[in-house]
Amino acid sequence: VKRKERSVAEYVKGVLNNDRTILAQAITLVESNAAKHMEMAQQMLNELLPYVGKSIRIGITGVPGAGKSTFIEAFGKFLCENGHRVAVLAVDPSSSITGGSILGDKTRMENLSRDPRAFIRPSPSGGTLGGVHRKTRETMLLCEAAGYDVILIETVGVGQSEFVVRSMVDFFMLLALTGAGDELQGMKKGIMELTDAIIINKADGGNKPKALAAKEEYNQFLHYLRPATPGWETKAYTCSALLGEGIPEIWQVIEKFVETTKNSGVFEMRRRNQLKDWIYSMIKDYLESSFFSHPQIKEKLPMIENNVIAGTLSVTKAVQQLLRIYENKKESE
Amino acid sequence: VKRKERSVAEYVKGVLNNDRTILAQAITLVESNAAKHMEMAQQMLNELLPYVGKSIRIGITGVPGAGKSTFIEAFGKFLCENGHRVAVLAVDPSSSITGGSILGDKTRMENLSRDPRAFIRPSPSGGTLGGVHRKTRETMLLCEAAGYDVILIETVGVGQSEFVVRSMVDFFMLLALTGAGDELQGMKKGIMELTDAIIINKADGGNKPKALAAKEEYNQFLHYLRPATPGWETKAYTCSALLGEGIPEIWQVIEKFVETTKNSGVFEMRRRNQLKDWIYSMIKDYLESSFFSHPQIKEKLPMIENNVIAGTLSVTKAVQQLLRIYENKKESE
Repeated sequence: VKRKERSVAEYVKGVLNNDRTILAQAITLVESNAAKHMEMAQQMLNELLPYVGKSIRIGITGVPGAGKSTFIEAFGKFLCENGHRVAVLAVDPSSSITGGSILGDKTRMENLSRDPRAFIRPSPSGGTLGGVHRKTRETMLLCEAAGYDVILIETVGVGQSEFVVRSMVDFFMLLALTGAGDELQGMKKGIMELTDAIIINKADGGNKPKALAAKEEYNQFLHYLRPATPGWETKAYTCSALLGEGIPEIWQVIEKFVETTKNSGVFEMRRRNQLKDWIYSMIKDYLESSFFSHPQIKEKLPMIENNVIAGTLSVTKAVQQLLRIYENKKESE
Repeated sequence: VKRKERSVAEYVKGVLNNDRTILAQAITLVESNAAKHMEMAQQMLNELLPYVGKSIRIGITGVPGAGKSTFIEAFGKFLCENGHRVAVLAVDPSSSITGGSILGDKTRMENLSRDPRAFIRPSPSGGTLGGVHRKTRETMLLCEAAGYDVILIETVGVGQSEFVVRSMVDFFMLLALTGAGDELQGMKKGIMELTDAIIINKADGGNKPKALAAKEEYNQFLHYLRPATPGWETKAYTCSALLGEGIPEIWQVIEKFVETTKNSGVFEMRRRNQLKDWIYSMIKDYLESSFFSHPQIKEKLPMIENNVIAGTLSVTKAVQQLLRIYENKKESE
């Protein structure tokens, strides 16, 4: 039996009551690429706008193996036990390529996913990073409207995903491995400069001395970098998600961060700029995809590029040709 | 008396003969924003395409006070005396704002500018960075066609200018001051990761020990970073432009770099990618400026942004509204 479709009013009411079934369906609506669903999703979001924005938004990144799942489980559990409600979202632009989201598996966080105070949502699948960005951002707003006051957005270090996550959170942390020197060399360019805290997990047992050494090495390196957030000194911390050690201290760091940036106005300013940047990036995405997905451009671009590389056509002339093709089709539409 | 305008054929012939007067006029033609001049400039460039691309393109950046002028003068002089012909260009996007290019003053490099084997061209003025980018790139091509085999492109660290210069050169170097720790902290994000060499100038007199210490500190820091060019280890070097010390060694480093990257294919691949990126960035610039400069968008954007920030309009709806305004005007044109 096909489920009766809900009205916008039903979605709004269900989300505000934190009906988890309806929240999940509302997210599915936001993730849909069907025109009708998109229209409904936008109506729903507009009605929920007065109820969003009151959470602390935290981005978490780190290479596979850095212990993101165990950290998020321990951190989320701690928050729930201290009166918070936690939503865990994921941005994983690789999921459409690898044929299965490595972040999508709720069983990774079995303990947390059973907690009624937590809500875990795997990565939206498919689409461009711009599309994933929109879906994740709007999912975050839905979770806020449903009363979750801490949003954790997880990402693997693939392509541009950290920059996208940084552009939607208040606080951004990097989960790092021990052996800082080696890891830093392989680390993606620019990622350290997005970071408000570096967390070295697995500081337990025989690994503890190495974790402490890595902390020192990261701190030494961070000393050279300009902080990601004005007025906030990015530092490295150790913890053991396994033993639960260091987890409360990390939450204290985040609380201190929120207090500091709210007092200085940086918190509010960042949120405003994020909204503006989101508008601009959606417009740019639209303009570019409208151009590069146009059939005649797709047909002609490789040949024109080859002529430029072969040295028989200047770049400016190539661009003029391409724009003429594009403008002509627009007029003839 | 108004100067008789030259034909495209005259420009082409003059540039190929390295007639410095005509070369300078050809650059002025490339820098002009008048439609007629742009058309002629593109014809000229297309005819010169078979003669371009044979130089070594070097980008040089550094904060004011790092000694860029004295370094370029000493380095350029050395190259000329060793059989090279050197063109010095500048990208200075701030010149239109500050009302006078700090790089535009030939008197800074009096000695070099009097050398017939060198050609110095100040920064093109005005326009967007995209426009400056095009003008500088096309000026570089003209200089190559005129037989200059080393192109030095200088930039101050303002805005996005280093990224633009990195996107048009083979080798990129950063002139740094002593006191690395202090400077690194204030350095623009991401700049170290563009760099193929760090040059600490002013390694002379009482400053020499400090320069050597800075070199060590930079090398230590560089150890953590992924190299800007695959297969090339970025290192710090000292020199004294004043005494001419260390200058030949820097040229040896660049020669080694060219040899290494030509053997590995990285040199050629980077040039190809730079051409493609240039096409894409020109198209993006055009699409964005066409959108954001549209009168109705300019009129409506601030209000729509304010509604988003006030929380009465969702970002997606805002973007839909803006795109509808834009598409309507296109249809009615």
